[in-house]
Amino acid sequence: MNPAEYPITTTIAQVHNYMDQNIRIQGWLYSKRSSGKIHFLQIRDGSGSIQCVVVRSEVPPEVFAVSEVLSQESAVIVEGLVRRDTRSSLGYELSVQNLIHVSTAPDYPITHKEHGIDFLLDHRHLWIRTPRQRAILKIRAEVLRAMSDYLDGNGFTRVDPPILTPTAAEGTTELFHIQYFDQEAYLTQSGQMYMEAAAMAMGKVYSMGPTFRAERSKTRRHLIEFWMIEPEMAYFTHEDNLKLQESFLSAVVQQVLNHCQPELELLGRDLTRLRAVQPPFPRMSYDDAVVWLQNQGHEIQWGEDFGAPDESELANQFDRPVFIERYPTKVKAFYMQPDPKRPEVALCADLLAPEGYGEIVGGSERIHDYTLMKERFIEHKLPNEDYAWYLDLRKYGSVPHSGFGIGLERTVAWICGLEHVREAAAFPRLLYRLYP
Amino acid sequence: MNPAEYPITTTIAQVHNYMDQNIRIQGWLYSKRSSGKIHFLQIRDGSGSIQCVVVRSEVPPEVFAVSEVLSQESAVIVEGLVRRDTRSSLGYELSVQNLIHVSTAPDYPITHKEHGIDFLLDHRHLWIRTPRQRAILKIRAEVLRAMSDYLDGNGFTRVDPPILTPTAAEGTTELFHIQYFDQEAYLTQSGQMYMEAAAMAMGKVYSMGPTFRAERSKTRRHLIEFWMIEPEMAYFTHEDNLKLQESFLSAVVQQVLNHCQPELELLGRDLTRLRAVQPPFPRMSYDDAVVWLQNQGHEIQWGEDFGAPDESELANQFDRPVFIERYPTKVKAFYMQPDPKRPEVALCADLLAPEGYGEIVGGSERIHDYTLMKERFIEHKLPNEDYAWYLDLRKYGSVPHSGFGIGLERTVAWICGLEHVREAAAFPRLLYRLYP
Repeated sequence: MNPAEYPITTTIAQVHNYMDQNIRIQGWLYSKRSSGKIHFLQIRDGSGSIQCVVVRSEVPPEVFAVSEVLSQESAVIVEGLVRRDTRSSLGYELSVQNLIHVSTAPDYPITHKEHGIDFLLDHRHLWIRTPRQRAILKIRAEVLRAMSDYLDGNGFTRVDPPILTPTAAEGTTELFHIQYFDQEAYLTQSGQMYMEAAAMAMGKVYSMGPTFRAERSKTRRHLIEFWMIEPEMAYFTHEDNLKLQESFLSAVVQQVLNHCQPELELLGRDLTRLRAVQPPFPRMSYDDAVVWLQNQGHEIQWGEDFGAPDESELANQFDRPVFIERYPTKVKAFYMQPDPKRPEVALCADLLAPEGYGEIVGGSERIHDYTLMKERFIEHKLPNEDYAWYLDLRKYGSVPHSGFGIGLERTVAWICGLEHVREAAAFPRLLYRLYP
Repeated sequence: MNPAEYPITTTIAQVHNYMDQNIRIQGWLYSKRSSGKIHFLQIRDGSGSIQCVVVRSEVPPEVFAVSEVLSQESAVIVEGLVRRDTRSSLGYELSVQNLIHVSTAPDYPITHKEHGIDFLLDHRHLWIRTPRQRAILKIRAEVLRAMSDYLDGNGFTRVDPPILTPTAAEGTTELFHIQYFDQEAYLTQSGQMYMEAAAMAMGKVYSMGPTFRAERSKTRRHLIEFWMIEPEMAYFTHEDNLKLQESFLSAVVQQVLNHCQPELELLGRDLTRLRAVQPPFPRMSYDDAVVWLQNQGHEIQWGEDFGAPDESELANQFDRPVFIERYPTKVKAFYMQPDPKRPEVALCADLLAPEGYGEIVGGSERIHDYTLMKERFIEHKLPNEDYAWYLDLRKYGSVPHSGFGIGLERTVAWICGLEHVREAAAFPRLLYRLYP
């Protein structure tokens, strides 16, 4: 049989369109059971996985013999008839007529047994082939898609801020340094300042790209390289900003639920927790949050930032993400607009995810007054030559504006119910881990 | 009048939905004409631009007085009646009832006169407010959207490869170095090798993100930081790869034509050139291309790579992009599959855009044989400790696979008809230019 002449080559995700027809799929062996006369091959091809049944009496002897020796992750092309089968979880299976053994995978390192996390991270290039990791990466892709769908559908323009910057948006520690020809450069920690410039040109804009923090911390919430989505809106107040965030995040979660239910179920995610993510989100002032935490026995004092345990406990009161509003101006970034009625707090909010996932969004109204921004420059000793362009935004047609940044991996970890953000990136960069 | 109570706040892009109604728009003054009794204000808000007519006899004296002194890029909120007007290019204009002057823009640097390119690049944060730059950035956003739409709609999964890598995909020169805690790291030049690992897990994948080349060259085709979209497909041959590329790129160009015609017209783009971008694309072998160039008087010899003038002249024969296929193995990357019938050439193609834009896509079938890949490692002196994972892909279930990379800024430059790729990025990074 000439493989090229076989009727239809398709993907496992499309097999349901070919009931009772002959098809060919191209993939890898994920697992196998045998009963002497029958081999049950579980074949994956990246789009899905399907049971392929090889019956000794129905195939040429060499096909049965090959099926016998196939080991996990061997590459195979399988030809056969799509047949209804109520015992299969899909409702159908492939009755094999021919099988082409493309390549072997001797001693495949990631077996169906348990492996330690360091071993798995060392083999991340293979680990992503497992159903669980594939499901997480599918959901990550859908989260990005859902974010673009929402923003593109609501008048936003995507703008890509630079990665190489002469300066830092938030302080100068935790930066990766680069020698940029004869200049000093740093990897971006946030595209926000550039997005402010873009918002003055395009009205509503968003970025979607990698950002970097050279943090010497090893927690389950931190990656060295992580993706941020940063919308920025001209003529948006703090209140407009919060309304947008709850609408945006709810739409994203609901789209993931609609498009990735099999993946969420494979991860064992409690879908009722996700279905609850609907606007409006609860809000709590920083003031009230501090008092509430103190009443729970936390040591926190007004003026301090929250730690991870504080955030978890605050968020666990609610069934959906909660905004903590109006933090002390001193603990937040220099560009945040002070509350005009109470300048010791800023018109900002962090959005804390439920179930202990902590901050996934940080946002604020930005200072639009030139004089105030100039004062902040002096206070924070920001080098004028690097930031002159940012001051220009307050000099020429300045308007109230707001924006936020959402961390992709933390959001994916929360939606998927992961223990650690490292599984939410295809090739996570952690402290001391740069391989593969 | 309390602005908060005005009927409807909308964007200029939506004004056509409010014919004969009172609305409010929030934007900036782009230009102004006056006739003593009437001011014609051209207002932009990022979503579009509209003529707002202020008639002395129809507004309070203070509104007329404010309109009098407004200068370019002053921020204004305008309230008024949407009225049909056949003299306007939109078919309607805003008859102003009230105007709130939000902020001034004294001595705005970018006037309606000509400015030098260095001045404009120094003021990129303001330059992007001009209609031409806004149109380019809108088209860039639509190109990214169209690419995602096509790939997501065709069974691809988006995967984000890391930016920080221990090694380089193509040679070790032209790399930006980073101290990654106690390790040496580099900024990625291509996510391809990671995408190969992802394709073995997910079947068809693509990346969309920034890449970096520390090239000391100043041409109109090069940026230091540029975006690449890199699809990679398991079980795809060279031929499958070319078919996908022509279908993909044609779909992208047609979607941009459908969604961005006003922006393309503003740029003066010849739309017939873009409408011609339909599959199939012409193909030429490298062999034939060399002979053809020699007949045109070029100095090129078989075995050499093409220069920009070679590429331009080759492409200018055709009304749509042309594939140049099967380059000498020696001038191409180590991972490209040699043609089994003629191993001195590789199963690869560059796609050259018409009108002198040169290479926008490079792609190939990848070596899937372990022994051959191992030989290439030795030949190219690739450090085994950094690349062991890449060899693993040939050890465990290796399959024929192919992929390509498309340069975003070059593609946008071609679609927009730009002289230089620097206008295709919001904040271009050029040799010696890191500001703003």
